[in-house]
Amino acid sequence: MSERVLVKTLISKSREELKNSTPQMIDSSILVKGWVRSLRKSKKLSFIMLNDGSTQQSIQVVVEDSIHQYDQISSMITGFCISVRGLLKESQGQGQSVEILAKEITILGGVTAEYPLQKKSTSLEFLREIAHLRPRTNTFGAVFRVRHAICFATHKFFNDHGFFYIHPPITTGSDCEGAGQMFRVTTLNVADPTTLPMINTDTDKNKVDFSKDFYGKETHLTVSGQLEAECMCLGLGSVYSFGPTFRAENSNTPRHLSEFWMIEPEMAFYDLDDTATLAANYIKYLIGYVLDNCDNELKFLEEREDGDKELRERLKSLRYADFKRITYTDAMKILEDAQKNSGADFEFKPFWGCDLQTEHERYLTEKHFAGPVIVTDYPKDIKAFYMKQNDDGKTVRAMDVLVPGVGEIIGGSQREDDYNKLLARIHDMKLEEKDYWWYLDLRKFGSAPHSGFGLGLERAVMYITGISNIRDVIPFPRYSKNAEF
Amino acid sequence: MSERVLVKTLISKSREELKNSTPQMIDSSILVKGWVRSLRKSKKLSFIMLNDGSTQQSIQVVVEDSIHQYDQISSMITGFCISVRGLLKESQGQGQSVEILAKEITILGGVTAEYPLQKKSTSLEFLREIAHLRPRTNTFGAVFRVRHAICFATHKFFNDHGFFYIHPPITTGSDCEGAGQMFRVTTLNVADPTTLPMINTDTDKNKVDFSKDFYGKETHLTVSGQLEAECMCLGLGSVYSFGPTFRAENSNTPRHLSEFWMIEPEMAFYDLDDTATLAANYIKYLIGYVLDNCDNELKFLEEREDGDKELRERLKSLRYADFKRITYTDAMKILEDAQKNSGADFEFKPFWGCDLQTEHERYLTEKHFAGPVIVTDYPKDIKAFYMKQNDDGKTVRAMDVLVPGVGEIIGGSQREDDYNKLLARIHDMKLEEKDYWWYLDLRKFGSAPHSGFGLGLERAVMYITGISNIRDVIPFPRYSKNAEF
Repeated sequence: MSERVLVKTLISKSREELKNSTPQMIDSSILVKGWVRSLRKSKKLSFIMLNDGSTQQSIQVVVEDSIHQYDQISSMITGFCISVRGLLKESQGQGQSVEILAKEITILGGVTAEYPLQKKSTSLEFLREIAHLRPRTNTFGAVFRVRHAICFATHKFFNDHGFFYIHPPITTGSDCEGAGQMFRVTTLNVADPTTLPMINTDTDKNKVDFSKDFYGKETHLTVSGQLEAECMCLGLGSVYSFGPTFRAENSNTPRHLSEFWMIEPEMAFYDLDDTATLAANYIKYLIGYVLDNCDNELKFLEEREDGDKELRERLKSLRYADFKRITYTDAMKILEDAQKNSGADFEFKPFWGCDLQTEHERYLTEKHFAGPVIVTDYPKDIKAFYMKQNDDGKTVRAMDVLVPGVGEIIGGSQREDDYNKLLARIHDMKLEEKDYWWYLDLRKFGSAPHSGFGLGLERAVMYITGISNIRDVIPFPRYSKNAEF
Repeated sequence: MSERVLVKTLISKSREELKNSTPQMIDSSILVKGWVRSLRKSKKLSFIMLNDGSTQQSIQVVVEDSIHQYDQISSMITGFCISVRGLLKESQGQGQSVEILAKEITILGGVTAEYPLQKKSTSLEFLREIAHLRPRTNTFGAVFRVRHAICFATHKFFNDHGFFYIHPPITTGSDCEGAGQMFRVTTLNVADPTTLPMINTDTDKNKVDFSKDFYGKETHLTVSGQLEAECMCLGLGSVYSFGPTFRAENSNTPRHLSEFWMIEPEMAFYDLDDTATLAANYIKYLIGYVLDNCDNELKFLEEREDGDKELRERLKSLRYADFKRITYTDAMKILEDAQKNSGADFEFKPFWGCDLQTEHERYLTEKHFAGPVIVTDYPKDIKAFYMKQNDDGKTVRAMDVLVPGVGEIIGGSQREDDYNKLLARIHDMKLEEKDYWWYLDLRKFGSAPHSGFGLGLERAVMYITGISNIRDVIPFPRYSKNAEF
């Protein structure tokens, strides 16, 4: 291993750098290992495109017929795993600066004709059925490398800004989120209902006794780490979570998963304006990082048959964009005016009090502003109980970040930090006060203004790769009736 | 916010740096926000120690009685949240280089006498009951900042080494892990068993029909992302996962949680030696990063009443340590010899074929080698089916990294990459071949030597902070009968 060189290392150097490298790389002996992407064979000479996953590009390996076992080697097909020892040479061709003249090739793993990645073109739908093999394709290699870059950029951005990465619980015994369809977590022997412990009272017949469950109560998979992140930020200042979240919704759409990853920063002493600024800077940083580090991947994704041909242009323009800000109330005026006077044909007629539909969001960001826009101060009745109430009695300090091509990509808010106002809202919304004892405590003791937002990682990966189905931007997608692997 | 300064920024500068800063910081007006850690009051002057979570240290705020509402301000107690505008001054005292002469103090959030963090000394056990408030204490502030540093160093280490961060599924429909006690994930209405869909055949009475469950089959929470990481590394080269894993074990010990975070790198083309080298380098990097970035936290943790007084010394010696390597067979000879001739009094008598107990591991790393040691090539019968078989027919290419004070901190192995050998092992161990179709596929198509290991994040945090109960190194610990929050 120590002497093995990554294809990325070879490919990333310019002709100039290679010539001036010390020790001299050109004509030196190197060892690479990887998988055959293609093999072009002639009687005297074969050309292998070898990929080791480290980068989008493959390196060309030139095989002369004088090599040991030329017949066997030149008969390899796509997918073979090999080790190549050879001399690094300046490439004569246009594309790459280097190639390898093979001196010794060892086959590490062969491939049979039933290998499903033999075919030149395979649909994303088909590849979804073989999620264990699809990381070997150019498309998924590109997507997963970009996904990594987005994740690393996220950690770097928040670390550089003095945030602490925290881990809210995945299994929650709290019903606070009230987000409806949650997955139950249990160790009770559900498979055989006759074994389930039952509550034996007259009023509670046929009810399972969850005090006998592993956690001594009903538990579910989290839908958001926000409430716990609030606890953390009121001690640590600025924190962020980055973990899996779950929704048991039968949404069979290209934009929904039942298991997805969320990035949720939460900051003491930030008001909504500070938070909007942070969200815009974060998005721009992500995009800049990917543009700077994944150009080959983005280029490949653009050039795919159904790739977004303007992918990099769109990202570049967002990188330095000014994120406009507008209140919900003003946004609604624009939408109503557009419906009346500008011939905008919304399926869902906009009116003050309605939730913004994707068509409304896209009108605002694509048509009206032709750029990213942050909508703030939504009607309180369409937003969660924990959002900070404005003095107008009608709106709350919520925000959504809208970007062209998608609509909402980030949602956030300033949180209600006044104990009495929060309690009143909990009562108004017929929530159980006792379920919120610890959340209320945060406002009882040393309360501070604080805010946060959430970004769905997979939505961000879709946006930045131009991949249109969310099932194709996560290694093993989870959705209704799908949990193979 | 934009003008607010973090305490970390002020504290981290030396007197020299402060004097030479441009613009001049000393005597300039600054704004800080945070929580009162303590307040010392006299008639004419009060001293507030203010902490904002950004760093272990608090900054001293000097309050003269000429300030607006001096009586109210000088009566604040621990836990008050305030905003302070004042002049940055060179501190006359020994400890800090700067302090703040307050010009204006605004109370953002008060505290009542029932605030449980009033008391000077609160036990970790007590604080576990108020996990929502404990990030506000010095101890938990230190632990969570170190935890963050370990996490960030992990991402940086692997990114710098060309690894890609991947996300194996949390909900798994695969029974492959065979790790016994798993949590079930379901959307069936378990609370009322009369509603459960049943299989109505003569042979399968009283069995629930999981084809009606959300995923159309039985699903559980993952115990490891390794098998899926193997799929990824055989396309991308080197990958790592960093996510939550779950064990439904009633282990009521200070070293077990039912929900914890694991870091699991998986590398194509790495053999066991390469993997041992990587593991040692990773551990050393983590420790070096924390030593370089969290000295104040480590110092505080050392000085705690039941802190580990040799914490930093132990970490420093590990940072540059040589990780010795030894086979299980040779380690067993040392242990047997120690039992016979050196008076080592093991509770569990060592013999070839037994699993290493913690007492054995600690003897090796603390007494015999007096430093970290990597034990390799364990008997196959005590290890998992997927580990690469040695030619001796008795051992597999497994490794455990042992460190003084803990014993095993990392476990890993080279994976069996030979299709026939893996299949034979699956049959030997009476596992179901059909459950492993995709895992076997990896060996059928372009198989490559590959290896990986796992590090439990919380175990690492315990080791690096000297905190002895695992429930105190994760924000909201999950264990039997405990899922509040």
